[in-house]
Amino acid sequence: MTDTAPRPTLEAVAERAGVSRATVSRVVNGAQGVRDALAERVRRAVEELGYVPNQAARSLVTRRHDAVAVVAAEPETRVFADPYFAQQLRGISKELTAHDSQLVLLLTEGREDHARVGRYLAGGHVDGALVFSLHLDDPLPGLVRGAGLPTVFGGRPGWDDGRDDVVYVDSDNRGGARDAVRHLVGLGRTRVAHITGPLDQTSAADRLAGFHDVRPDADAGLVAGGDFTSGGGERAMRELLDRRPDLDAVFAANDLTAAGALRVLRERGRRVPDDVAVVGFDDMLPVAEETDPPLTTVRQDIEGMGRLMARLLLRGLERDARPGRDADAPAEAPSGTILPTTLVRRTSA
Amino acid sequence: MTDTAPRPTLEAVAERAGVSRATVSRVVNGAQGVRDALAERVRRAVEELGYVPNQAARSLVTRRHDAVAVVAAEPETRVFADPYFAQQLRGISKELTAHDSQLVLLLTEGREDHARVGRYLAGGHVDGALVFSLHLDDPLPGLVRGAGLPTVFGGRPGWDDGRDDVVYVDSDNRGGARDAVRHLVGLGRTRVAHITGPLDQTSAADRLAGFHDVRPDADAGLVAGGDFTSGGGERAMRELLDRRPDLDAVFAANDLTAAGALRVLRERGRRVPDDVAVVGFDDMLPVAEETDPPLTTVRQDIEGMGRLMARLLLRGLERDARPGRDADAPAEAPSGTILPTTLVRRTSA
Repeated sequence: MTDTAPRPTLEAVAERAGVSRATVSRVVNGAQGVRDALAERVRRAVEELGYVPNQAARSLVTRRHDAVAVVAAEPETRVFADPYFAQQLRGISKELTAHDSQLVLLLTEGREDHARVGRYLAGGHVDGALVFSLHLDDPLPGLVRGAGLPTVFGGRPGWDDGRDDVVYVDSDNRGGARDAVRHLVGLGRTRVAHITGPLDQTSAADRLAGFHDVRPDADAGLVAGGDFTSGGGERAMRELLDRRPDLDAVFAANDLTAAGALRVLRERGRRVPDDVAVVGFDDMLPVAEETDPPLTTVRQDIEGMGRLMARLLLRGLERDARPGRDADAPAEAPSGTILPTTLVRRTSA
Repeated sequence: MTDTAPRPTLEAVAERAGVSRATVSRVVNGAQGVRDALAERVRRAVEELGYVPNQAARSLVTRRHDAVAVVAAEPETRVFADPYFAQQLRGISKELTAHDSQLVLLLTEGREDHARVGRYLAGGHVDGALVFSLHLDDPLPGLVRGAGLPTVFGGRPGWDDGRDDVVYVDSDNRGGARDAVRHLVGLGRTRVAHITGPLDQTSAADRLAGFHDVRPDADAGLVAGGDFTSGGGERAMRELLDRRPDLDAVFAANDLTAAGALRVLRERGRRVPDDVAVVGFDDMLPVAEETDPPLTTVRQDIEGMGRLMARLLLRGLERDARPGRDADAPAEAPSGTILPTTLVRRTSA
């Protein structure tokens, strides 16, 4: 299982190309910010020496386990039923595999198992962790940080433990929500309602904030609480129609919520988009394409978030493994990286 | 994170109850075969001493990592899309959690990643492995066994490396297939066709063998090759109807195959079950209930298979950790454990 065949090293490539090891690493790992001429020189050296990129990452990084844990704060049943998580995991898996790092998914039945996850993380089995922890009161982030491992979070963490070195990747939930509401206003709608997600999750709180950015004076009766499920969307839509039968637009916090709202609007004889325009969030397929009518929504690059989480973690591991910081080493990973969203127009608004 | 508080040991419980450690372990772990009076004595001692069962498993077992790897020979995308695997994983997760053992799911993008999985398994990160390897030519089983870890396989392995100590859990594919075909024969059908699964998987090969057990003289024209997908079921059904338009029954190797076959039968104007009776395999929900008409099929206890795999592995770990074998210790795990199947009658046959 061990790899004893002598192979060209990263150092050899750096010497041949006349650049630093960090520059070789960045070119090999597809990072930005290396001048074209320099990158070309590195690529030529890689070819001439028959250098294998995976080996690159490994020798530069000198990781001990070549393995990264993925931990979700949700029980196993929800993790497997959640298409959103599956898409993020796909991005993570591709990125880790490209760097020959093993994806170690730690599953639990519930919160009472998180201490065991913490023990595993602290036990020297992985080089770092990618953590999905969505709820404000979750003990998992503390356990993970207690394990002392380099960690990247999926989604902006809602807790504040006084440390400002939390690295996370998120979508621009607030900006995307603004785009959605501006689109509805641009259609001439004046009574725009919002069905929120569960507000103990930052994604839901940020989307509500985006709604308020565009409608700072919105009547409180135009906001109803949902829970990111279609059943929650149905309940909230009924509540809104009872309270404000004159509403002419709905921004739903995600596509499932929008699907529930659309069912209730149809049931109550409202035409979409003529009477009520509806916008969702996520662009979760096939849901967003199969609603009646097809859903206008805010697309997130979910797989891209997963890829970026893995990439930031691997880069952090590289940096940590380096004895001295190279003069041209990339800057510290920013604490939060926010990926842009796009409004996708279908029929519902 | 380490657990240093002194707690009552398994030995103390055994002494208090006047039984062997193995008996305590069996009662605590809910195993069968302990006389009621004895079990009651153990339970009383557990209560009196305030003994914590999880600690039981741990101290008896003296596992180093309290973690078990789950490895599937399929790429990450297929693992996450496969409801069958999700159900098995649910059973595994419940059983491991009940024994405070961490489920470590090792995901891959493809076969080229299996060597890395082998390295992780050999690296001292888990106590044992549960492996799903369905294809005859798969290198994964060899890699896992090379890692020297206690292993339980899901499904009867198709390879033969001359060792007879392979522990696996499977459904009674052959017996279930016999039940399905006998049911069709019992309905008076005389021209019973079979759409197979991919025959490089033992489950498909065993179901074909079950078909032949009941129909040893079946015309070769009544057997068509499928691949466990509904598309494959459609193709095979067209082939069968072209070859043998007089067929009056179909045993499909799984429910997805049956769903495809039903679509083609409807397309060709055959009434089900009047003209052609159809039986599937798996009882995969919601598929089996949502076909038109609802599907008569052979039910496997998929979650139960997962549970049993985990239980056999944990028992094996217990045995390995014991210095001397207790006189009343359970017998060696049988090499293959076959779970029974049940015919579930709906409308299609």
